[in-house]
Amino acid sequence: MSIPGPGYAITARVDAPSRPSTAGDLTAAVGRVGGVVTAFDIVEARTEHLVVDISVDARDTEHVEEIKAAVESLEGFSVRKVSDRTFLLHLGGKIEIKSKVNLRTRDDLSRAYTPGVARVSMAIAENPSDARRLTIKRNTVAVVTDGSAVLGLGNIGAAAAMPVMEGKAALFKQFAGVDAWPVCLDTQDTEEIIRTVQLIAPGYGGVNLEDIAAPRCFEIERRLRELLDIPVFHDDQHGTAVVVLGALRNALRVVGKKFSDVRVVVCGVGAAGSAIIRLLGSEETADVIAVDVDGIVHPAREGMDENLRSIAEQTNPEGRTGSLADAVAGADVFIGVSAPNLLGAEELSTMNDDAVVFALANPDPEVDPMVAMQHAAVVATGRSDYPNQINNVLAFPGVFRGLLDAQAHDITDGMMLAAAEAIANVVAEPNPSFIVPSVFDQSVAPAVAEALRAAAAKQAREGEVSAG
Amino acid sequence: MSIPGPGYAITARVDAPSRPSTAGDLTAAVGRVGGVVTAFDIVEARTEHLVVDISVDARDTEHVEEIKAAVESLEGFSVRKVSDRTFLLHLGGKIEIKSKVNLRTRDDLSRAYTPGVARVSMAIAENPSDARRLTIKRNTVAVVTDGSAVLGLGNIGAAAAMPVMEGKAALFKQFAGVDAWPVCLDTQDTEEIIRTVQLIAPGYGGVNLEDIAAPRCFEIERRLRELLDIPVFHDDQHGTAVVVLGALRNALRVVGKKFSDVRVVVCGVGAAGSAIIRLLGSEETADVIAVDVDGIVHPAREGMDENLRSIAEQTNPEGRTGSLADAVAGADVFIGVSAPNLLGAEELSTMNDDAVVFALANPDPEVDPMVAMQHAAVVATGRSDYPNQINNVLAFPGVFRGLLDAQAHDITDGMMLAAAEAIANVVAEPNPSFIVPSVFDQSVAPAVAEALRAAAAKQAREGEVSAG
Repeated sequence: MSIPGPGYAITARVDAPSRPSTAGDLTAAVGRVGGVVTAFDIVEARTEHLVVDISVDARDTEHVEEIKAAVESLEGFSVRKVSDRTFLLHLGGKIEIKSKVNLRTRDDLSRAYTPGVARVSMAIAENPSDARRLTIKRNTVAVVTDGSAVLGLGNIGAAAAMPVMEGKAALFKQFAGVDAWPVCLDTQDTEEIIRTVQLIAPGYGGVNLEDIAAPRCFEIERRLRELLDIPVFHDDQHGTAVVVLGALRNALRVVGKKFSDVRVVVCGVGAAGSAIIRLLGSEETADVIAVDVDGIVHPAREGMDENLRSIAEQTNPEGRTGSLADAVAGADVFIGVSAPNLLGAEELSTMNDDAVVFALANPDPEVDPMVAMQHAAVVATGRSDYPNQINNVLAFPGVFRGLLDAQAHDITDGMMLAAAEAIANVVAEPNPSFIVPSVFDQSVAPAVAEALRAAAAKQAREGEVSAG
Repeated sequence: MSIPGPGYAITARVDAPSRPSTAGDLTAAVGRVGGVVTAFDIVEARTEHLVVDISVDARDTEHVEEIKAAVESLEGFSVRKVSDRTFLLHLGGKIEIKSKVNLRTRDDLSRAYTPGVARVSMAIAENPSDARRLTIKRNTVAVVTDGSAVLGLGNIGAAAAMPVMEGKAALFKQFAGVDAWPVCLDTQDTEEIIRTVQLIAPGYGGVNLEDIAAPRCFEIERRLRELLDIPVFHDDQHGTAVVVLGALRNALRVVGKKFSDVRVVVCGVGAAGSAIIRLLGSEETADVIAVDVDGIVHPAREGMDENLRSIAEQTNPEGRTGSLADAVAGADVFIGVSAPNLLGAEELSTMNDDAVVFALANPDPEVDPMVAMQHAAVVATGRSDYPNQINNVLAFPGVFRGLLDAQAHDITDGMMLAAAEAIANVVAEPNPSFIVPSVFDQSVAPAVAEALRAAAAKQAREGEVSAG
């Protein structure tokens, strides 16, 4: 299903003969082998000779070679150099540090550094909570990974995870003004990860765990929540769960059903699936059925780990057993966070009327979206080339903006549901092709942040009451 | 010796009567109690009433109270609010993250984040050294502390060390374009510090250890140099040593002496003293005598730790014993990195003619600089209010600029001597009041960086030769 896209954009510098048909010949040749021309610039023009930069979206490395060959097969054309625009953009990394203070004069230096800084340090030594006021802790989140489950690439390690974490940091800043810093750890030992995050925590107002493999991620998150006085959020779990719940709220509005009436099948019980199941529980969903490669999760199943046993307890009130197809029959909602091509038209046709299908495996969904649209009332995917893209970027920037502003010490399920509701409410009138806002809708992050601040304030009030 | 300075600058908002003498009355009142007025602004003017902001450099908290009382003792004047400009400048921290890429469109997103970023991550997974090209590792240094020896404040812990490390990061950026990130560790256990720095290292091109107490700092640095393939530099040791050596080169030029002829007393054998002694050895200094609270360091002294034994081996070729005064008698150079007020006119008068005195204890030097100037040909301190300020900011930005540009795997004594020479050479014609460049001389960091790059290239060539 791979199609040419801007993630594989190249610019080729081409020597070409100077004739009226040059542009047409070149773009046609690229088009014939499936390259999508996005720009054409003449760099140098002589009487008999042109130098041209042509920018093309390609599918993959082989496709780039095909495009190059297609150009060179033209009489008088040759490719001087092919630049990969994605790699060019990554040279030297994607984020940098900026000083917020001027250091131009001796007076500047004596306030921002010695001797003035000593008083600020002493104030924090005397009153540690002042760190949230007088240091970058106020606005800074650690984006922590061990590189064990990076995107769809798997266990590629700490160094190779850096470009993804830098991208995340850039998104945090762009969408919510949050300063996020990549912390890529050269270990995949649970205890070492926990201890390291604990030791670096003084500089941060929150921890965003990222791309850490299940089930290790569950223990790391649970233990860090106990150990730290700043919120810990595993984006692959909770970011996804928040956006899915927000989208599902609107999908149910579109089909006129309620959480308390529907049966939901969650296919995949890794990081995302487990967190979705927990939030569906908080929404008092009538019936949630979890499915993994061994079929429906139920208490009597053998060989379950701690996570699966916990899921078996929370789900499947009617004690169903069987396959994914058995689970889907009669269900109202399918949420896939698993693997490509697990369902077809036949299974979908057994779902209840006005079915909702979220097929979120990336890049290839659990069911072909075109097929799903024929059988379900609402379809969502993780992809940007279909309607209803479920993308974590709708959640994490606003979530941390709100947590930092509230100087929150933790994040609760109540705050996550508030975030989901805020995302849903950005869409004033949902319809089958519009259940979540665009990732570029600038009103999302502020709305999520406001919901988080309100939920944190409510929790703080209730904490005071119960403590009193 | 505390004097009013911009490190303790306040702005007081004052209600005052509207009359021609108001400004004069107010500034005179502040001046009478020793406040230095740096600015005066009328914020609001009515017929009978003025609101005035007056900015004043003060000595300390008590002095601020005195200034306030002095203003309020004036008929009709009252102080509405006193703002501490140093604290105002620190609100929310001193550095932030900036994205180097635009994330305005879906195409931007698909190059900087998914799906395009996956190819960049895979390139690094296949060829780990590409991390220095395609991630922030190219330009980024960890500023690591355990908060155990922060400025003159001592063991104030990780959180309270943050403002200092942020200031350091701001200096790195301002003076050399280096992205530095504060890593304040919530442990003072040597093994934990070593392991944590090792685990976070994938994201950094260098490590700047900072304000870690001796002798722990020596082992941490030595072990990390063995474990990591990026340079590790303890600024309190080597930054100070580089600037001291650079300054001493010029001081010896001024008095017409050579390293190979002089006797140098180093008073204080902590982080800075130990590193200065090592670099003096690399310069083939004739005679170095180390002194600590127990007097001259010599091999037969009892109860010495590993660091002291190592110093005893490197120094004192004539086997002297005795007190600081015994060491100073007949010496050419005194370098103090120890404690206030250890020397007076009497001891200084026993030094050789054309003596050089570096009294670097902060804020109060080993000897009163005014006294030292009467007995020595060249005097330097760590303070900005006397000539010849020895300040690490002359070294560390350029040192790391050069190391990052050279993609160096370590830093050698040869590179540090090259840096010292570069700092010295920025001063074309040294004289007794001008042996080091100003901290604001913008030519220093590039000169140091160039020296480092050249030294690293030389070492790489020699490494190839010896490996071949």
